[in-house]
Amino acid sequence: MKRRQPIRVSDAINRVMHYAQPNEIETVQIEACDDRTLAEDIVATHAIPPFPKSPYDGYAFKAMDTKGASQNKHVTFEVIEHIPAGKVGTKQVQTGQAVRIMTGAPIPKGTDCVAMFEICQSDQQYGKEWMTIKREMAPGDNVMAQGSETKEGTKLLHKGTYINPGVKAILATFGYQEVPVAKRPVVGLITTGTELLQVGDELKPGKIRNSNGPMIASQLKRAGAKVVELGSLTDEFTTSYQAVEKGLQRVDMLITTGGVSVGDYDLMPAIYEKLGAKTLFNKVAMRPGSVTTVAVRGKQLLFGLSGNPSACYVGFELFVRPTIRAALYEETPHPQKIKAYLKTDFPKANPFTRFVRSTISYAHGNVYIEPSGIDKSAVVTSLAKANAFMVLPGGTRGFQKGQLVDALLFQTEQGQRDIWQDVSYE
Amino acid sequence: MKRRQPIRVSDAINRVMHYAQPNEIETVQIEACDDRTLAEDIVATHAIPPFPKSPYDGYAFKAMDTKGASQNKHVTFEVIEHIPAGKVGTKQVQTGQAVRIMTGAPIPKGTDCVAMFEICQSDQQYGKEWMTIKREMAPGDNVMAQGSETKEGTKLLHKGTYINPGVKAILATFGYQEVPVAKRPVVGLITTGTELLQVGDELKPGKIRNSNGPMIASQLKRAGAKVVELGSLTDEFTTSYQAVEKGLQRVDMLITTGGVSVGDYDLMPAIYEKLGAKTLFNKVAMRPGSVTTVAVRGKQLLFGLSGNPSACYVGFELFVRPTIRAALYEETPHPQKIKAYLKTDFPKANPFTRFVRSTISYAHGNVYIEPSGIDKSAVVTSLAKANAFMVLPGGTRGFQKGQLVDALLFQTEQGQRDIWQDVSYE
Repeated sequence: MKRRQPIRVSDAINRVMHYAQPNEIETVQIEACDDRTLAEDIVATHAIPPFPKSPYDGYAFKAMDTKGASQNKHVTFEVIEHIPAGKVGTKQVQTGQAVRIMTGAPIPKGTDCVAMFEICQSDQQYGKEWMTIKREMAPGDNVMAQGSETKEGTKLLHKGTYINPGVKAILATFGYQEVPVAKRPVVGLITTGTELLQVGDELKPGKIRNSNGPMIASQLKRAGAKVVELGSLTDEFTTSYQAVEKGLQRVDMLITTGGVSVGDYDLMPAIYEKLGAKTLFNKVAMRPGSVTTVAVRGKQLLFGLSGNPSACYVGFELFVRPTIRAALYEETPHPQKIKAYLKTDFPKANPFTRFVRSTISYAHGNVYIEPSGIDKSAVVTSLAKANAFMVLPGGTRGFQKGQLVDALLFQTEQGQRDIWQDVSYE
Repeated sequence: MKRRQPIRVSDAINRVMHYAQPNEIETVQIEACDDRTLAEDIVATHAIPPFPKSPYDGYAFKAMDTKGASQNKHVTFEVIEHIPAGKVGTKQVQTGQAVRIMTGAPIPKGTDCVAMFEICQSDQQYGKEWMTIKREMAPGDNVMAQGSETKEGTKLLHKGTYINPGVKAILATFGYQEVPVAKRPVVGLITTGTELLQVGDELKPGKIRNSNGPMIASQLKRAGAKVVELGSLTDEFTTSYQAVEKGLQRVDMLITTGGVSVGDYDLMPAIYEKLGAKTLFNKVAMRPGSVTTVAVRGKQLLFGLSGNPSACYVGFELFVRPTIRAALYEETPHPQKIKAYLKTDFPKANPFTRFVRSTISYAHGNVYIEPSGIDKSAVVTSLAKANAFMVLPGGTRGFQKGQLVDALLFQTEQGQRDIWQDVSYE
């Protein structure tokens, strides 16, 4: 067996990201744009508000008509029209006249201020409608000027923005019935392992059910990719090679799980070699997932993730997800790295950088982190409860409760532009 | 106009949650269970590991055979079989014999320990395969006992758990090809307002495009509901009443936007009355969204959200989302309330509890919050960038940078069991 040279995690990510590439653009209807990312900058196609409008229900008139008004000296206006939101006034308002106006309605011609209902008194007399006010108003009072929120042409959203409900509201406001989004990268998924049963199979001696396949399919969807399931294979070279070779014709990138250890039946390195793919690395100075292997053939990245579920999960979030997010034009494709206080002791020594499946919590303005598998069924359920990885640098002898440690958040819309470094010094 | 009595936000949520009800159960294939919630507790259908297995590549044999072995005194075994992962040994191992075994393979009959490759020397001689070791092993060394991770019958996941990739891995491991999930509640959506154009329409004087419809549809999907779009209506009583009345025959709950202010053309209160629906509240001591009105008819909740986009958004997250999460059996349906440090001054006085669209950030183990609309195009883009609401209690005169304030996180899987209170004292 050839001895493998471990490289730093950040160096490994760097090598992978060198091959990450933005995907094509496609257009979807606004109704179907949820959870996609913008493929173009979005600008304001008109000013907001598009016309001077009233932020309140009230009366519009000329402010100068109230000159000298006070508690002891009221001014009365003839109300000549009612304008609901969505309608436009039809009359030119003259001195001594007012218009009853609803929230959002355009300011009528000839008026320059709005008095809220609360400070006006309404009256019907002589077959006409009247309004009385007991204070002075200034021009512009309660008038939202055209463009006062946003000027036409303002860049509102960057290319790569994840489309959440607030983003969708902006798209709707500015008439983007068709939304330019990044095409989802198509990612093939092959699980390998003679020991693997499918989910619906009865358990047999020596076998376990394939959990990596469903898990990675789910991680791919969460990251924004389109999954092409290419099957579950035994550890046999020829059929595995053929499946990989054929799969590569259909996908932008390929994930395999298993077959990357140095055991007798591990075959991905041999397949990469026969494919003529260039191996970027085959050992990373990290736990779990040290055997994670990434190769590239032409423009296609081939991710060889570990068959161990935790290592597989970690390998995906660290190496695969950022390339998918970059394909989707995200400006911050990497998981956000923050500092958090350890909530419990972590006495285990770390010869290599360790990624601990962890849960973030908060108290009194501080952010805390603890391993998500602290009870008995830890190993099985720790992935279910994890919303972060604790990053413990290699060469350390354990950590105490209350210490500040690094944490990678991988469940938030928010990411980080630069590749995080294995160790951060403060 | 009748004077409306404002109630506290927490009281309002309390009144709504009184009518929240768990939805029916349905079964989906594991491939389609992403982002659903479990409708039943999930137990381990077998032990993990299901058989004693090897955590490493190595040799299995009887530990007592190494008694007395040391750097100066090696012990040699005859290697009688190779067992890859997924296969079961066929031979009974005798004293002096060993079996070459791969990670994950079952421990062969007659052996009680595994020595890793790294400490063994392999050899071929006399047409046989041999292995030499220079240290003592103890029974159980490198053997994962059956059930050492999880006993059969252990409850692994609670009813109401959100199905993320880690949860899916557990379901796959234990053979849940069919997954019991909560049926998505069906929520009708009607937008009202004579001023509303549809997204694809040209802008016209006095009109604005309907952004609440697409936004709420997106918030509903994010919360886990199924949306039934029932159209966009003008502020006209008869057609609006008919649309609401007809819509209620098809849905579990109904959202309307607009028509809840006290202006001349606001009509939802009248519609509720004619429907015979009981109004739970029609004024909440909060900004924005004070006019949020909720009524109930039979078991159906009718949410009358404000037509103002920000108020509409806030009203949804505070009042609608928790009822949907409860319908999905979530044990923590409310947004998680945490304390965060104000990153900027917030000088505005708050006569009522104010919900400020905000962004969470982190530094040095602290969590910070700031309004997401601090630049010019604030009002339009603040919803797009918000991942939390800052909650500023009523009766306060502004806050300074560095003060601890309440924050509601509404974009995380993590929620909170109890209704948060308007003000938290520390």
